[in-house]
Amino acid sequence: MTAAGRTGVAVGGEGEVVLTAASIVALVGGKLVGNAAAEVDAVAPLDRAGPRDLSFLAAQRYAPQFAETRAGIVLVSPELESGTGPTGCTCIIIEKPHEALLRVLPALYRQAVAPVGVHRSAVIGRGARLGSGVSIGPGVVLGDGSAIGDGAVLGANCVVGNGVEIGARSHLHPHVVLYAGTRLGERVILHSGVVIGSDGFGYVYRENQHRRIPHVGWCIIENDVEIGANTAIDRGSISDTVIGAGTKIDNMVHIAHNVRIGRLCLIIAQVGIAGSATIEDGAVVGGQAGVGGHTTIGPGARIGGQSAVFGDVPAGETWSGYPARPHRDSLRTQAALSKLAKLLRPIERLVRDMDKNSEP
Amino acid sequence: MTAAGRTGVAVGGEGEVVLTAASIVALVGGKLVGNAAAEVDAVAPLDRAGPRDLSFLAAQRYAPQFAETRAGIVLVSPELESGTGPTGCTCIIIEKPHEALLRVLPALYRQAVAPVGVHRSAVIGRGARLGSGVSIGPGVVLGDGSAIGDGAVLGANCVVGNGVEIGARSHLHPHVVLYAGTRLGERVILHSGVVIGSDGFGYVYRENQHRRIPHVGWCIIENDVEIGANTAIDRGSISDTVIGAGTKIDNMVHIAHNVRIGRLCLIIAQVGIAGSATIEDGAVVGGQAGVGGHTTIGPGARIGGQSAVFGDVPAGETWSGYPARPHRDSLRTQAALSKLAKLLRPIERLVRDMDKNSEP
Amino acid sequence: MTAAGRTGVAVGGEGEVVLTAASIVALVGGKLVGNAAAEVDAVAPLDRAGPRDLSFLAAQRYAPQFAETRAGIVLVSPELESGTGPTGCTCIIIEKPHEALLRVLPALYRQAVAPVGVHRSAVIGRGARLGSGVSIGPGVVLGDGSAIGDGAVLGANCVVGNGVEIGARSHLHPHVVLYAGTRLGERVILHSGVVIGSDGFGYVYRENQHRRIPHVGWCIIENDVEIGANTAIDRGSISDTVIGAGTKIDNMVHIAHNVRIGRLCLIIAQVGIAGSATIEDGAVVGGQAGVGGHTTIGPGARIGGQSAVFGDVPAGETWSGYPARPHRDSLRTQAALSKLAKLLRPIERLVRDMDKNSEP
Repeated sequence: MTAAGRTGVAVGGEGEVVLTAASIVALVGGKLVGNAAAEVDAVAPLDRAGPRDLSFLAAQRYAPQFAETRAGIVLVSPELESGTGPTGCTCIIIEKPHEALLRVLPALYRQAVAPVGVHRSAVIGRGARLGSGVSIGPGVVLGDGSAIGDGAVLGANCVVGNGVEIGARSHLHPHVVLYAGTRLGERVILHSGVVIGSDGFGYVYRENQHRRIPHVGWCIIENDVEIGANTAIDRGSISDTVIGAGTKIDNMVHIAHNVRIGRLCLIIAQVGIAGSATIEDGAVVGGQAGVGGHTTIGPGARIGGQSAVFGDVPAGETWSGYPARPHRDSLRTQAALSKLAKLLRPIERLVRDMDKNSEP
Repeated sequence: MTAAGRTGVAVGGEGEVVLTAASIVALVGGKLVGNAAAEVDAVAPLDRAGPRDLSFLAAQRYAPQFAETRAGIVLVSPELESGTGPTGCTCIIIEKPHEALLRVLPALYRQAVAPVGVHRSAVIGRGARLGSGVSIGPGVVLGDGSAIGDGAVLGANCVVGNGVEIGARSHLHPHVVLYAGTRLGERVILHSGVVIGSDGFGYVYRENQHRRIPHVGWCIIENDVEIGANTAIDRGSISDTVIGAGTKIDNMVHIAHNVRIGRLCLIIAQVGIAGSATIEDGAVVGGQAGVGGHTTIGPGARIGGQSAVFGDVPAGETWSGYPARPHRDSLRTQAALSKLAKLLRPIERLVRDMDKNSEP
Repeated sequence: MTAAGRTGVAVGGEGEVVLTAASIVALVGGKLVGNAAAEVDAVAPLDRAGPRDLSFLAAQRYAPQFAETRAGIVLVSPELESGTGPTGCTCIIIEKPHEALLRVLPALYRQAVAPVGVHRSAVIGRGARLGSGVSIGPGVVLGDGSAIGDGAVLGANCVVGNGVEIGARSHLHPHVVLYAGTRLGERVILHSGVVIGSDGFGYVYRENQHRRIPHVGWCIIENDVEIGANTAIDRGSISDTVIGAGTKIDNMVHIAHNVRIGRLCLIIAQVGIAGSATIEDGAVVGGQAGVGGHTTIGPGARIGGQSAVFGDVPAGETWSGYPARPHRDSLRTQAALSKLAKLLRPIERLVRDMDKNSEP
């Protein structure tokens, strides 16, 4: 857990690079107002920035914070350039300061590096294979016959089941658990508390008990997938659970057994996907939405937050609501519903009148 | 963490049994087409099966995968028996191939075994009592005065609070935390990331602060309960939180303080159950549903996914929706709602006319 | 992990104090019926209380349990005082027995204490600073340059990132992960499975990939915040994520990057708060509710359970529903909706008649 030497593995973290105002202008453009030699070594919001921090002003409502900021350098939107900045603050006047800042970040924040090697407290199973340049943190447990690809990083206290394979340059943050039957591709990022490959929720009721259905399918996470904190993905029963390449999954998502998610999907926080559902390439599922078992969400479809998908959603469409329907219908229904309360009394009167008129 | 010897404890995992086509027919019946001596040692879906894998074909839509499968043996539904299988593949023609496969699984997948004993890196509290044949994994921490029943398995990095009792043959997967005040029955299965017995969310507002209400009730998990990954169950405040025997709880379920769940219930993923609610025997709560505080769900009742239960649900009934009502009403309301948007304009016209007609 | 000596740090747990019936009456008042010397050393509900337990009877429906209880002492509501208690049970007749019991708890349950010092299996990073009287449990990993305040308690297997600061007397239960960029105030309580400071869910789509936006903002948890089991809070992208002093967050809550939560808020279980939302002082968000990105919930506002907040909520108002609207409107709309199904046929008849009448 000591800082990495020259032979470390790149991981997310804070760096120690110094940039001058002049070098920032060289990097992103803009007009320098102030001291070209001003130095920063971090980025911070205006309200907590200090003299060694770079910050930005992109909206009028942050002008009061700008007036009082202690930031060393501030990227300022042209239309906000005026005499309101604090004295001693170097400004760079530039279109879209937020985007410029994102371009500065990789230069300023050198990736932190995890120490190459196996921590003395790690427990390595029989026949486990470790690639070159891996970083195995304190308290990590690797199961028998597991295989860790080149340059992979396993943070503290991760637990890897028997026979699990982890692709090259994958990064498990501390406290990830991979059950037996898990296969990770390359450059997969798993955040803390992620559980992959747990047994699915499958029982048959027999002799007054819910009896477990054995789960022997795999849980396959393809290349370049990133999975957020405390998300859990069950292994398949007989078929596999598969998360396609380049898909990104947010925090606390539940993915049941036999689910197939395609490539480049976005699954927002707290979504629940029931067993054997299929999410095709490029689909986006909004936060807290639920996707019913055995349903299919077509390629490129978008599901609104908190929606309940009980049937198939065609390719490219946007659906929302409970139960989910095309978003346009959903909005129309909501609009009608919000008018309904006011119309209810007149309607009841009309119906009463109609009944009266139809009396003999 | 090395593989178990003969004296190990049964845990879920991959086995090393070999079955021939003939022995599978002897086990489940069916008509053999091909090589009776063909051998398999695992189960896999058609698309990734290899020559040593058993697979199955139960639906027409998987026929293309069947045509190209490399599986050694395939269980095939009689109505799908035709010349479309790959050459060299041994088939067993049988009704309901999926069910037949489930009957093969226990023969093929011998339970993996956890090594009996206490890993040298485990930390055992003062006065802790360990039953015979227990398996205590690396990094496990047992609190003072805790008691672990015969044959129990505690996976890597589990933490057990002071005075906690764990019944015989219970199985904690890696990374389970049991707070003080937890009592587990026998054969309880807890998946990774489960937290049991955390303090409930109870505060009184006094002197400009939310002050904690102490939680001294227990959290009691009865025999044969299984609990999914990253689920959290709070201990009682003064009364206890109780999960009844044989109940199964899915991933990421939240169960608040003083909740009482009966026997043989099914609680699907991401359900939230508020404080002091009661779920009676055999009830089923669908995924992402919420159950309000102090409500009662009667025995055998069923709650639809994403429903919001704000009041009591009678025994045996099925309720759904927001707010939850009898499912039949809920469907009728949804149907009416989906027609409302179209009727809105005519209704508004009718109401306008009525108002005009009633003018003096 | 052995019991604490005299120099331990206070943590939640079971105590070993003995109280007599007389001393309880001295503490909370009431009328003693029975043996003034009767002793108890714990609190339990009527149904599992034993001779050394204190219990209470506050509602008629628990009278049958009272008749059979083995509790040593029972606090009984005056209107329930009758001859139904078991023989040998000492009673204290008192108004609001539940509140009286809460006043007894601090006397009966002395805080358990965590052993002061650093467990031999903990891993301490380079330049980490430990305050006086801290308790660092087994398997804890402290990052380089982290700082742990006086009297802080870190339970087993907690992982603290590089440069993280933890304020005095904060208490991390086992299995908490703090990423780099986290700042905890004083007296913060984090329950097991909490993840703070994970990278937010931010990507830009470029060259056929979702590319990560670096996250360099902090995650700031102010004084006296308590956070429930398995909750995850992301660090800011460039700005910070901030949880204000005295706010309490329940289990399995998701808080995205750049969210700002004010002071003394209550966020109930399974709530999801999307990126850059603001929750102002004293607001209450009900269980499973979702708060949309960039929305603001005003000071003192209350959001009903399972609501979906898509726009700003004014100060002090109560909103509910999907989409959330003022609670009164929401109730009215639900009432109208439940009548709609019955009115639908007559309405359709009216509309048909109108169309007929308007025919030429």
